[in-house]
Amino acid sequence: MFRIDASILRECVETVLAVVDEARLKIYEDAWRIRAVDPANVALVDLELRREAFSEFSLGPEEGQKKGEKEFVIGVPFDKMRDVLRWCKNEVALSIEKEKMTLQSDAYTFTLTLIDPSSIRKEPNIPELEFVAKVVVDADDFKKVLRAAEKISYQVAIGVQDGNFFVEAEGEMETMRYSLHKDELVHLSSSNCRSLFSLEYLAAMAKGFASDALTLHISTDHPLKIEFDIADGNGKVVYMLAPRIEAE
Amino acid sequence: MFRIDASILRECVETVLAVVDEARLKIYEDAWRIRAVDPANVALVDLELRREAFSEFSLGPEEGQKKGEKEFVIGVPFDKMRDVLRWCKNEVALSIEKEKMTLQSDAYTFTLTLIDPSSIRKEPNIPELEFVAKVVVDADDFKKVLRAAEKISYQVAIGVQDGNFFVEAEGEMETMRYSLHKDELVHLSSSNCRSLFSLEYLAAMAKGFASDALTLHISTDHPLKIEFDIADGNGKVVYMLAPRIEAE
Amino acid sequence: MFRIDASILRECVETVLAVVDEARLKIYEDAWRIRAVDPANVALVDLELRREAFSEFSLGPEEGQKKGEKEFVIGVPFDKMRDVLRWCKNEVALSIEKEKMTLQSDAYTFTLTLIDPSSIRKEPNIPELEFVAKVVVDADDFKKVLRAAEKISYQVAIGVQDGNFFVEAEGEMETMRYSLHKDELVHLSSSNCRSLFSLEYLAAMAKGFASDALTLHISTDHPLKIEFDIADGNGKVVYMLAPRIEAE
Repeated sequence: MFRIDASILRECVETVLAVVDEARLKIYEDAWRIRAVDPANVALVDLELRREAFSEFSLGPEEGQKKGEKEFVIGVPFDKMRDVLRWCKNEVALSIEKEKMTLQSDAYTFTLTLIDPSSIRKEPNIPELEFVAKVVVDADDFKKVLRAAEKISYQVAIGVQDGNFFVEAEGEMETMRYSLHKDELVHLSSSNCRSLFSLEYLAAMAKGFASDALTLHISTDHPLKIEFDIADGNGKVVYMLAPRIEAE
Repeated sequence: MFRIDASILRECVETVLAVVDEARLKIYEDAWRIRAVDPANVALVDLELRREAFSEFSLGPEEGQKKGEKEFVIGVPFDKMRDVLRWCKNEVALSIEKEKMTLQSDAYTFTLTLIDPSSIRKEPNIPELEFVAKVVVDADDFKKVLRAAEKISYQVAIGVQDGNFFVEAEGEMETMRYSLHKDELVHLSSSNCRSLFSLEYLAAMAKGFASDALTLHISTDHPLKIEFDIADGNGKVVYMLAPRIEAE
Repeated sequence: MFRIDASILRECVETVLAVVDEARLKIYEDAWRIRAVDPANVALVDLELRREAFSEFSLGPEEGQKKGEKEFVIGVPFDKMRDVLRWCKNEVALSIEKEKMTLQSDAYTFTLTLIDPSSIRKEPNIPELEFVAKVVVDADDFKKVLRAAEKISYQVAIGVQDGNFFVEAEGEMETMRYSLHKDELVHLSSSNCRSLFSLEYLAAMAKGFASDALTLHISTDHPLKIEFDIADGNGKVVYMLAPRIEAE
């Protein structure tokens, strides 16, 4: 049985849905963990929601845990979970039994049929990557820049140049350059770098940005790594996005 | 000539439109009365708007009344009446002459061509029914439950079980149960009962719920009767909805 | 280089877009001027934005001006300009160089490719017209009347009758008459008159009404002229709309 604030649970569900509709949820003694890649292998989400984010966190046989097991796995239809969480205010009591997840909140009780976890793609490994730039940006500003870029192109260059963080989009008749100097950013440590990314994927991820500040890790022609805290610091999300190759 | 607050008139028009687009309006010396069923004979609306809801209520020859008549009938296109009421604020002066209804409000004057009442289905009789349960619910809560249920199924069970009012929906992969104990309700007097209803019809009716509180009358495999006051108590609406037969 | 408040620039762009997507912008030493007609020759916009509306107004060689020239012309894609202005807050720095317009606002820099002005229709002459009526109306009220009329018909009669300004629409089953007496208007001086206009064009123009008050000039079976100030009085817009011929 787990008890957690409905808005925190909703936040987690949204961050996962930015990449996949269904995923394996691993329940450990200290946290929930989800790691999934989209079908095209372009975007990855890695979420950890620690025990401290819950007001009750107890694993019992009814949670599918067999004696002595340290973790167990369920297959969660996050899209359907979002549908039912829409109606939950305040605290949600969540329990897992056999192939069912039950969510109870105020007068509502919802049950969802779980998915056989073996039918969902296995968790990917997260590649060990080095980045040359680390930038902390305001999440709302970054979302707004991505929306502006979407009006102009289907892809966007993100990078650092001479102490300025930039986002660039180039259309047939228009261009956009967004540029913020080091002094206007929470943090920027970096060499120059630049990578190109699909706006379709970035815009989807932007729906999951559930924090005021995002930490971006950038290199040249390299994946983009976006990190932020959730659940008042009792959880963390990492997104990774593969770069596009810049046409010469 | 009738004078009435635009928002009260709009409210009445919406409650009728929840069931039919056009209906016969009977004008008596003490009230307006409308009773209509939808084309499939599944839903019924019965509305009474008493003289006291109007700031002027005078029937003259121009209102189609012949000498000595106690009532007369007109055919009203309520959908078109909604269109024009959108632009009326404050008080509306409404008059009926020959085949026209005129609505005047501030600088606007609208005329609507009435429908020959003989071309509209006759008022149905309201069947005399006994119900085992009477529940008073909050209208907004009930609307919200119906919206939640619509996400899951196209039908809903409504009933009472052991002193709890419940609404249940069952989908292929999800279920919802909403349950409120007697103590959480304004009123519940009841034996156990349960009937199944079309959500399409209930959702349409929900648009007409023009009151904070609804009184539901329920029995097993029996129509649902929903009552509420309109026009600050100077009018009343009754909806009746036929049950679906529960598949074994 | 020009500097101007983003909201004023946005306002100007919207007033032009109410008639055409692209237009020739003439830059004089004292003002920007735009005059354009729609492809069907039914609607005309004539805009003047004076030097005083700008916080910087300097023409240099980079603005395309050759020595001794008093004006120059560029072809502006106003639809694309609207897209990028959506993201500009505060002041916009606008410069023109060769075939590019650059808009810079806060961290954003946008460039737009200009259109060859010779490929855009030449400015029309504004016909010298006499009107019998002049009415000053509230812009929001007039917009609301046009929306109400659109529900009923695709055309509208506008005129003055016995000291009342009126707008009339006639549908198959409904009519609307909006009528305001002289005393309820800011200004009305007039003989009786009446002309019929396309609601499609008027509704488009309504999106450009960037002022609280509009001055309408009306005659019988004559164009409608609508005037209003923009940029806190440092600019002016005139719309002209050809009448429809009333079917007998």
